[in-house]
Amino acid sequence: MKTRLGSRVTALFGLDYPIFQGGMAWLGTAELAGAVSAAGGLGIIGAGAAPPDWVAGEIAKVRALTGRPFGVNVLLVSPHAPGIVELVCRERVPIVTTGAGNPGPYLATLRAAGVKVVPVVSSVSLAVRLVRAGANAVVAEGEESGGHIGQTSTLALVPQVVDALAAAGTPVPVIAAGGIADGRGLAAALALGAEGVQMGTRFVCAIECIAHPAYKQAILKAGDRATAVTGQTTGHPVRAIRNVLTREFERLEAAGTPKDEIEEFGAGRFRAAALDGDTVRGTLIAGEISGLVRSIDSAAVILESTVRQAEAILGRLGGDVK
Amino acid sequence: MKTRLGSRVTALFGLDYPIFQGGMAWLGTAELAGAVSAAGGLGIIGAGAAPPDWVAGEIAKVRALTGRPFGVNVLLVSPHAPGIVELVCRERVPIVTTGAGNPGPYLATLRAAGVKVVPVVSSVSLAVRLVRAGANAVVAEGEESGGHIGQTSTLALVPQVVDALAAAGTPVPVIAAGGIADGRGLAAALALGAEGVQMGTRFVCAIECIAHPAYKQAILKAGDRATAVTGQTTGHPVRAIRNVLTREFERLEAAGTPKDEIEEFGAGRFRAAALDGDTVRGTLIAGEISGLVRSIDSAAVILESTVRQAEAILGRLGGDVK
Repeated sequence: MKTRLGSRVTALFGLDYPIFQGGMAWLGTAELAGAVSAAGGLGIIGAGAAPPDWVAGEIAKVRALTGRPFGVNVLLVSPHAPGIVELVCRERVPIVTTGAGNPGPYLATLRAAGVKVVPVVSSVSLAVRLVRAGANAVVAEGEESGGHIGQTSTLALVPQVVDALAAAGTPVPVIAAGGIADGRGLAAALALGAEGVQMGTRFVCAIECIAHPAYKQAILKAGDRATAVTGQTTGHPVRAIRNVLTREFERLEAAGTPKDEIEEFGAGRFRAAALDGDTVRGTLIAGEISGLVRSIDSAAVILESTVRQAEAILGRLGGDVK
Repeated sequence: MKTRLGSRVTALFGLDYPIFQGGMAWLGTAELAGAVSAAGGLGIIGAGAAPPDWVAGEIAKVRALTGRPFGVNVLLVSPHAPGIVELVCRERVPIVTTGAGNPGPYLATLRAAGVKVVPVVSSVSLAVRLVRAGANAVVAEGEESGGHIGQTSTLALVPQVVDALAAAGTPVPVIAAGGIADGRGLAAALALGAEGVQMGTRFVCAIECIAHPAYKQAILKAGDRATAVTGQTTGHPVRAIRNVLTREFERLEAAGTPKDEIEEFGAGRFRAAALDGDTVRGTLIAGEISGLVRSIDSAAVILESTVRQAEAILGRLGGDVK
């Protein structure tokens, strides 16, 4: 135990720090997930749209790097989702987080295999439904996060999820995500009633993240109004750093372009940004908190500095109370 | 001094609690502002589009209710703004907050008259500019707030404003607004580096607020996804509880209706909701945090319970650090 903060989360998942790394497609590789887990946080392999074989390889690589707990993020809209669920059960992956949908159908299977399940939710009602169905915890993700987003901010969402789970008689831990990149965010999340945080954007800028250097630089250069949300008209809004591409999306949407064409237009754009460094016409997925990310650090430094900063803040504010 | 939390804000403005009441048009009357100030927070008369005579009357009524400091919110787009600035200087109103624009032209006048000036800002750049021009503090307002909003959430905005003011050598207090309705929000705001909070939605549901009972009930009944943002196409987005009116706005905007027609369509709708209780075709201005507002309380109870809850949270979390 390297901190007493978020102790229910660290105990439940076997961590030193109550910090999850967001399970990002393309970027949540064994390099990053292994480094985060080895340093005492929860590293998460982002399955994205990848096939089970790729995920199996990443699981093996993480296990070669560390004996600590790690997770796999299952993107529920992926055609490979059933195969990946089967894989993580067979491999006894300790933790699964799920994104983009309702993991209800897989919950019982995963739990029966001893896998802890932590859905990422952006509304109170889904949180309550999934915890009733057996989820061990939830990540409550505010709309300030990067990528696919909901409609409620972290500050408003987290306490409402905490209250609703308590009222339902299922007060499992809530992990806050969206708008968190340092110890201030962790301390704020704990104040709201969360017992841990998930960070995505900050970990994109980890040394161990394979993101293209130009993508990392785009985050480091971003200010407080750097991101835009596109795809509102398709029903699948995405937050990313403004560039030529987001302006093209905005033009297409304003012109009433059919949903299919817009989604087609966006295909492959995140990979182009993340791996090829196309900062002009790639989707530079990043959260509103990009403006706070100012350096590229190792996963271990990110975890340690975040927790120590939160402890310093809470120690000082706690001292003001006495 | 009724709390040691936010002591720079309470000392600067002469308060017991580091809590501002949002200076809402129509609802920020002497009844509410006087009650908040009398109880040790900062009550604020919302000038809105009202003429100086009305504001002068409210100032007199607040002074009849309490000798404690209070403020006037000057809506900079109001045609009456110059007259109201003259009035608050003449009346030596202790504090002015400003909304909807850049108060730069009035800053020197207000400061020269001994009025403390606290602009409401939704971006880092405006915060830095106005503090350099002489603002005594800033309210950093996230897009989860009700009414006219910016584009960055409170969780992301506040630490970025704090850092930028420190970097500029002008570390005045930052007051967080948007998404805050209880002691969890206050504790989180302090963790982010704010030294106080402003609450709007919660104070709409104060006993002393003249808002129509049906409007208060709409907030009490709201859930986490109850609000919508309309007016994106006009460049003046507004957050309000979803109803027939917000859906009509959405239809008009999707149909490419000219900006002037949309703004015309919205004229008078807030007054209809706030005072006449038109919950169907009135603009039910409210923040994302509406889902957390569950009771109608006196201003004194709102202030006291918010601070005591924040103290309990910070005392407990501070204890985890030792």
